[in-house]
Amino acid sequence: MNTVELIRKKRFGGELTEQEIRDFIKGVTTGEIADYQISAMLMAICMAGMSDRETLALTLAMEKSGQILSLKDIPGVKADKHSTGGVGDTTTLILVPLVAACGVKMAKMSGRGLGFTGGTLDKLESIPGFRVELPIEDFKRQVREIGCAVVGQNADLAPADKVLYALRDVTGTVDCMPLIVSSILSKKLAAGCDVVVLDVKYGSGALAGDARQAKELAEFMVRLGSMSGRKFSALVTGMEQPLGAYVGNALEVEEAIQVLSGQAQGDLKTVALELGAYILRNAGAVKSVQEGRALLNRKLNSGEGLKKLAAMIQAQGGDPRVVYDTSLLPKAQTKLEVKSFKSGYLSQVATNRIGEAAKLLGAGREKKTDVIDPAVGIIVKKRIGDAVEVGDVLCQVFANPASDADGALHLLNGAFTVSAEKPEIPPLIEYVVE
Amino acid sequence: MNTVELIRKKRFGGELTEQEIRDFIKGVTTGEIADYQISAMLMAICMAGMSDRETLALTLAMEKSGQILSLKDIPGVKADKHSTGGVGDTTTLILVPLVAACGVKMAKMSGRGLGFTGGTLDKLESIPGFRVELPIEDFKRQVREIGCAVVGQNADLAPADKVLYALRDVTGTVDCMPLIVSSILSKKLAAGCDVVVLDVKYGSGALAGDARQAKELAEFMVRLGSMSGRKFSALVTGMEQPLGAYVGNALEVEEAIQVLSGQAQGDLKTVALELGAYILRNAGAVKSVQEGRALLNRKLNSGEGLKKLAAMIQAQGGDPRVVYDTSLLPKAQTKLEVKSFKSGYLSQVATNRIGEAAKLLGAGREKKTDVIDPAVGIIVKKRIGDAVEVGDVLCQVFANPASDADGALHLLNGAFTVSAEKPEIPPLIEYVVE
Repeated sequence: MNTVELIRKKRFGGELTEQEIRDFIKGVTTGEIADYQISAMLMAICMAGMSDRETLALTLAMEKSGQILSLKDIPGVKADKHSTGGVGDTTTLILVPLVAACGVKMAKMSGRGLGFTGGTLDKLESIPGFRVELPIEDFKRQVREIGCAVVGQNADLAPADKVLYALRDVTGTVDCMPLIVSSILSKKLAAGCDVVVLDVKYGSGALAGDARQAKELAEFMVRLGSMSGRKFSALVTGMEQPLGAYVGNALEVEEAIQVLSGQAQGDLKTVALELGAYILRNAGAVKSVQEGRALLNRKLNSGEGLKKLAAMIQAQGGDPRVVYDTSLLPKAQTKLEVKSFKSGYLSQVATNRIGEAAKLLGAGREKKTDVIDPAVGIIVKKRIGDAVEVGDVLCQVFANPASDADGALHLLNGAFTVSAEKPEIPPLIEYVVE
Repeated sequence: MNTVELIRKKRFGGELTEQEIRDFIKGVTTGEIADYQISAMLMAICMAGMSDRETLALTLAMEKSGQILSLKDIPGVKADKHSTGGVGDTTTLILVPLVAACGVKMAKMSGRGLGFTGGTLDKLESIPGFRVELPIEDFKRQVREIGCAVVGQNADLAPADKVLYALRDVTGTVDCMPLIVSSILSKKLAAGCDVVVLDVKYGSGALAGDARQAKELAEFMVRLGSMSGRKFSALVTGMEQPLGAYVGNALEVEEAIQVLSGQAQGDLKTVALELGAYILRNAGAVKSVQEGRALLNRKLNSGEGLKKLAAMIQAQGGDPRVVYDTSLLPKAQTKLEVKSFKSGYLSQVATNRIGEAAKLLGAGREKKTDVIDPAVGIIVKKRIGDAVEVGDVLCQVFANPASDADGALHLLNGAFTVSAEKPEIPPLIEYVVE
């Protein structure tokens, strides 16, 4: 079947066969199918939908479009975690060393992507000397010896996804369930882990607007992931306010260290440990999620999680002293404050505005070529439900000369709603999907 | 609004404003909007549809994307005719001189396009010396002096349509009502005529599969055309078999000459005169369609139509003697025959197979760069309902050494269905839409 006929089949709601999907992805990967044909197909998929069978075939074809990592020569269960992304969401830096300290290997490859703040790789690179680009063999040796590694996706994993993603971004076809699911899963499958736990976010700072949409996405991914023969679970978690208080690259490393050293409690810790507990249970290291939580808390309280983070930093060329002395992290030159002009209770946070503000300060990328400033960011001082007095600091802003601090302050001034009534606290972990 | 947001608005079924459509077409024309974004938008339009208001705005924006011809300095009403295309459909060559002989000016610009056989331009170019590329001023002078001209669209009419059409062809988005209508009408409007009559075909040799679809398209075009302030009518006509008996470029010129010289009757003549009658009535040259038919028949029988064709051929550099001596037209080297192996009645014709066979012989283009052989083609010897004996010739095939005659014969052998029962004769003019 030629490409035009294939596009038309989907346009009129037909179900593509495995062979047709494989041919399409082959043409995407080799460049034989032109951009304008790919984007017509993407729009047809968005509007006509795809069955589970089609989405699985798409996922597997994309997985096989490039290199497929084998982690079989590393003993034990290898686990990975994926988040759909949010603001102040640095669970990876907490759970990777903590789960490794519990004896389950975390072999994490991250893409860079665009966003409000940098991704996990950018956060790690704010640690002086830290290298995220490791040869595959060094990555595998580190996982074998230390139990964890977080590196850039330098292998040629799912190259078809790169082509599709770039086109989705410029053709208004990003938010389409089968395309989202196949994009995420194809890379996860190609990266070779046995157990994958997903964190699907919803709310004012997330891709999915509401819990129902997020649950649908989570169910779809778990169903497809399980059809592919791996063990997948997903948490559906709220992002009605930044998950942690710190938003920015070095700032989020600092907060992760605070959690691992027992100095910080709250939602960030809760979600990180919950994700970790599911990984431990799915990997067979504990019998139940409850046991997983308990084990993670013991490893946190004993300092073994923090030690594991230090070992990982050292193995990847970074300065491990940072975990005991966060003043070694880059600092911004200027600190500003956003204060409340009302009394009452913090009732609503426009999390996306906080994310946008962080980007204006220099913490995120608009274009792939933008350079991130690791030092800048925001610390949010109030959570939804907290009492607020006139003049209370709602957030601190850390800026450098290149930051658009005025733009950030403008956004932040409109980001917090203070009401007379004490609001309901939004749920944190809304659903578990397995 | 940026391009991605605009695409998304249509993806989710929104109605685009006039300004948004103008901006989009401007970006298409200047090249600022990338091909892959245009094709995503085209697919979204196909799948979400467009309101009349949107389609009119699209048509007008495309009309204004390039040069707009003014024929105001030519006295009298100027008329044009458009067919959605079929096989053996050479009504233009008959009605253009005949209507001109009745005193209504026919100023026809044709595109070349792809198809089974060449377009009107290719047919005319089979006349030795005939030139279809005239400067605009010469075109207008000829219409003023002789009353008719058929030329290539050398003006920069509706350039946005060229971009959209090329992309539609390779992205499976050709058959989409608002895109078809805006493509046809934008060029007709830019070409400056006051009266336009459309021939919308359906059946085995046409774009529209059934009469209902064709009627819907005709109604849409007449509605939109009238909204633009011109006088539009449409006939919905059947294409269950080739309209004329001759399929091929010089062959169709020959058949048109036969009709104009009173030597050939039948469906081709009927449709040509019917279209002409509506033009005469809409132009105000006669009071009714019936009067129009009568006037056209008088001009045909008096030989004035044929003389007008000769005058037009001479004005455009061709050899006018051809209208009295068709042996001056190019002839193919080989004549083959397809015979019936059954007795009964011709009940069905796979008109598209006849068209494909003509293309294999060299009468049409697959790609824009293909060169047409004017001499090759097919003469169909039976019409639906005719009695057929074993061994009767169903069609004659005129081939040259470069023709794929085997391929053509293979297609033609499967193109005619002979049945024991006498079939119903398919209707010729199914609807009139005004």
